[in-house]
Amino acid sequence: MRQSSPSQPDFAKGGGLLPAIAQDARTGEVLMLAYMSAASYAKTLASGEAVYFSRRRNELWHKGEQSGNVQKVKDIRLDCDLDTILLRVEQVGGAACHKGYQSCFFRRVTPDGLKVVGDRGFDPDVVYGKE
Amino acid sequence: MRQSSPSQPDFAKGGGLLPAIAQDARTGEVLMLAYMSAASYAKTLASGEAVYFSRRRNELWHKGEQSGNVQKVKDIRLDCDLDTILLRVEQVGGAACHKGYQSCFFRRVTPDGLKVVGDRGFDPDVVYGKE
Repeated sequence: MRQSSPSQPDFAKGGGLLPAIAQDARTGEVLMLAYMSAASYAKTLASGEAVYFSRRRNELWHKGEQSGNVQKVKDIRLDCDLDTILLRVEQVGGAACHKGYQSCFFRRVTPDGLKVVGDRGFDPDVVYGKE
Repeated sequence: MRQSSPSQPDFAKGGGLLPAIAQDARTGEVLMLAYMSAASYAKTLASGEAVYFSRRRNELWHKGEQSGNVQKVKDIRLDCDLDTILLRVEQVGGAACHKGYQSCFFRRVTPDGLKVVGDRGFDPDVVYGKE
């Protein structure tokens, strides 16, 4: 494992993966949380588009590769412990969530269960095809 | 392990702990990321103040217990996969970071390293005492 420099995320802290929050740079809306490896972080810096690490597929995940809804990175912040990454992005297509919502956090916790409060940017059946 | 209901965070997915993002409900600023267990989530719901799980101390962590800078929870959102929690909060004292900044994400990644871009809300030497 490489030693982390004080200006780099400390990927060792997260066993190789750190949480990365994507926030809409214009509206401030929190869009999603995914994970980054050192390689995906390096690709994000080099390409200017968010590249995560898919824990399910165990591979780099260039967000929006399939849907076209890439995230153009405007600004990257690191937290005080160097173990969380905050990306401030322009969300192409207006929707970060694979369910078609602007934000993956489209449901609010209420005493009566979850209530949808987010706006839908696209119909996933059209973009990804019906299952 | 308890079975998760479809309106509850799926803590089993994260091995008992899920990432929780705190966002300033008024300004939209992302303040910090910490972790929640089922017990800390339940305490957060019951008390209306953010209660995390400290991975370092291995115990519940009522944010602001020592500094007074509690987080009053205005709204809770869950993501599409039910494995990330978003708290929209009023940050009492104006600073979430133990280093005195409004946000833990007070440093921006630049080609020349990290640059401080956040505002400091308090002097940690005064609040916590000098080390």
